[in-house]
Amino acid sequence: MTAFSERIPYMRASADVVRVLFESVTDPGTITFGAGAPAKEALPVDEVAEISRDIFTKDGVGCQMLQYGNPMGLPELRQVVLDHLLTPHGLPARYENIIISNGGLEGLCMISHLYLEPGDVVLVESPTFVQTIETFQLFQARCMAVETDKDGFVIEALEENIKKYNPRLIYVIPTFQNPSGRTTTLERREAIAELARRYDVMVIEDDPYSELRYSGVALPSIKSFDTTGHVIYANSFSKIFSPGCRLGYVYADQEIVDRMYDVKTATNSLTNVYTQVICAEFFIRGYYPEHLKRLREIHGGRRDALMNSLAAHMPAEVTWVHPDGGLFSWVCLPDWLSSTELLPEVMAAGATYLPGRQFFAEGQPILDSCMRLSFGQIPPETIDKGVQIIAEVVKSKL
Amino acid sequence: MTAFSERIPYMRASADVVRVLFESVTDPGTITFGAGAPAKEALPVDEVAEISRDIFTKDGVGCQMLQYGNPMGLPELRQVVLDHLLTPHGLPARYENIIISNGGLEGLCMISHLYLEPGDVVLVESPTFVQTIETFQLFQARCMAVETDKDGFVIEALEENIKKYNPRLIYVIPTFQNPSGRTTTLERREAIAELARRYDVMVIEDDPYSELRYSGVALPSIKSFDTTGHVIYANSFSKIFSPGCRLGYVYADQEIVDRMYDVKTATNSLTNVYTQVICAEFFIRGYYPEHLKRLREIHGGRRDALMNSLAAHMPAEVTWVHPDGGLFSWVCLPDWLSSTELLPEVMAAGATYLPGRQFFAEGQPILDSCMRLSFGQIPPETIDKGVQIIAEVVKSKL
Repeated sequence: MTAFSERIPYMRASADVVRVLFESVTDPGTITFGAGAPAKEALPVDEVAEISRDIFTKDGVGCQMLQYGNPMGLPELRQVVLDHLLTPHGLPARYENIIISNGGLEGLCMISHLYLEPGDVVLVESPTFVQTIETFQLFQARCMAVETDKDGFVIEALEENIKKYNPRLIYVIPTFQNPSGRTTTLERREAIAELARRYDVMVIEDDPYSELRYSGVALPSIKSFDTTGHVIYANSFSKIFSPGCRLGYVYADQEIVDRMYDVKTATNSLTNVYTQVICAEFFIRGYYPEHLKRLREIHGGRRDALMNSLAAHMPAEVTWVHPDGGLFSWVCLPDWLSSTELLPEVMAAGATYLPGRQFFAEGQPILDSCMRLSFGQIPPETIDKGVQIIAEVVKSKL
Repeated sequence: MTAFSERIPYMRASADVVRVLFESVTDPGTITFGAGAPAKEALPVDEVAEISRDIFTKDGVGCQMLQYGNPMGLPELRQVVLDHLLTPHGLPARYENIIISNGGLEGLCMISHLYLEPGDVVLVESPTFVQTIETFQLFQARCMAVETDKDGFVIEALEENIKKYNPRLIYVIPTFQNPSGRTTTLERREAIAELARRYDVMVIEDDPYSELRYSGVALPSIKSFDTTGHVIYANSFSKIFSPGCRLGYVYADQEIVDRMYDVKTATNSLTNVYTQVICAEFFIRGYYPEHLKRLREIHGGRRDALMNSLAAHMPAEVTWVHPDGGLFSWVCLPDWLSSTELLPEVMAAGATYLPGRQFFAEGQPILDSCMRLSFGQIPPETIDKGVQIIAEVVKSKL
């Protein structure tokens, strides 16, 4: 067999973890706190059914949906991003600053093409989203974890790591972080933007969960503090519309977005036009506000169910994050317990989760006593049953 | 502005050409022989309208279309590739050998991730498809052009270049090549597979046009002569179903496809599920044979119109390729004329084409006297008018 390029063995460890992530999505047999998918009850099936029934036969639209389109994205969808998602949050984006991507992750991949050379350092939160580590490692970057606390990056630690490693990128999920569920405070958002400016390092602000807020007050994005173009804002339609449509977008300075056009045409030509038309129509018809309300009700109810079940069943030694939104809580067992070692027993009893160790990069302690519980896909009553299963196994070890 | 990675300036020249390619797709004002899109009359609008009307509300299907899916692709679509596209052509593929991609180009990009290091040589035909050069250059590969004649790669030249450059990849479009319209002969297909085996170099067989045959006899693919796993077969649904759905596939040895899974999850997670369901249903409902017949009739009629118009209007000094299928003919003016220099005058008169110089890599003469005429998008009567416009400008220079 002809040898693969060096990036392939380099990324293998993270890739193996991501395989587990995807396989846990489709396993129907157990109560899965593993996958980060939204509730199937929260998918806009009825609205899209209606759109798909009539849009396709509208004059010329079916033909447009099936033909080549603009690599920057469908004009109507870029306008939707501007009007419905960025402007309402006070972001001073213009149409020219937006490029549509194949889901949120492709935005991160395009940014990696723009900036990363083999050996470059990317600073990430500790813990952070494992699939993004896989992306950075595909570019043979070295992901260095930076200390975080309940309020996000510890700013002093971030600055120290910037000085020490001269990183190319800082990767942060400031709102309802994956996997921890934590939210970076206002002060720290401002500080991250300021560090990026001062040290001339690019920040990727990955923001797929911020619309899914169930309590607390919305915070301005890191991008809103960016005056020098050092923050690239990447987002996804996966949690607010549909993961299966693979739509996302990047908002950045025009020079950056212009070069993303080149990366886009060189990697997959353009994002599929078909679902861009449907997604744009969903927003244009005004379905989004009501849909978002339903998303928040369903997932917020599940967040509450998880919090109540954890309080009801977990022994006193266990702690967890109360997330104000998103899809995850981070549950920590006593530090002498391994969530990896407990998992087979939990699975045998009919539940599953992602062990904490999978979410750590080099440079910070690997907290294998923690686990990510994703509550999006599980109805409240099943959440309680699943937490009981995990709690019973944990108790048996104490 | 923070500096981009080295791959970005490296690919700039090819990227600028690809921009022209995409902008020519959407320009409605002129008779465009520029873009390689299929006829809009050949898009399966009615069939997809029917499918989209009822599939979405089928039990659970709408939910499946909107939710995450398998990074390898929708099982039903992989089976369609096997049953409808590979097995009928005698290819001994198994289900495990197939991965679905975001259009044909993403297949080539995934292969590049697997094999290319900066500075690696990729041998390409002369001329070859410019967008693929952009892809290889994104990986900082050096594309070296190898001599071709009317029968494809000149095999002696190919072997000589393999010895000289020790290439990582050989890239070939053997059937109705883009941009030349030429088809590699049976003997040469076998010889390419044999050279790949002997010199342990991977071949990418890019095959998006072979189903669009209007005359002559179908030839076995290079992949069908591959006994050692050195040929990776990449194809697209863009020309036989829809470009806007962004669907394609790669057929290769399982070890290769397994690593593509990792590249896929690291670059964009998975191909959009929505259009995979619709495309699979299109084949499962048995619409493809009739649709392919229509594709061949429409495009074959346009091929004939172009051939007749060239014969009727072009001066004797001009030669062109009679393609047995696909979407392109390669028209060569006397070698002292530049198709690049003539283009503004042709555009002012209401037609456009892609100048030949854009399709050449390093190492072979750049034939700027040639041009690519893409006939897919133009009705026959307009083809004649367009050819007249070009012929008048050419004649005025003789």
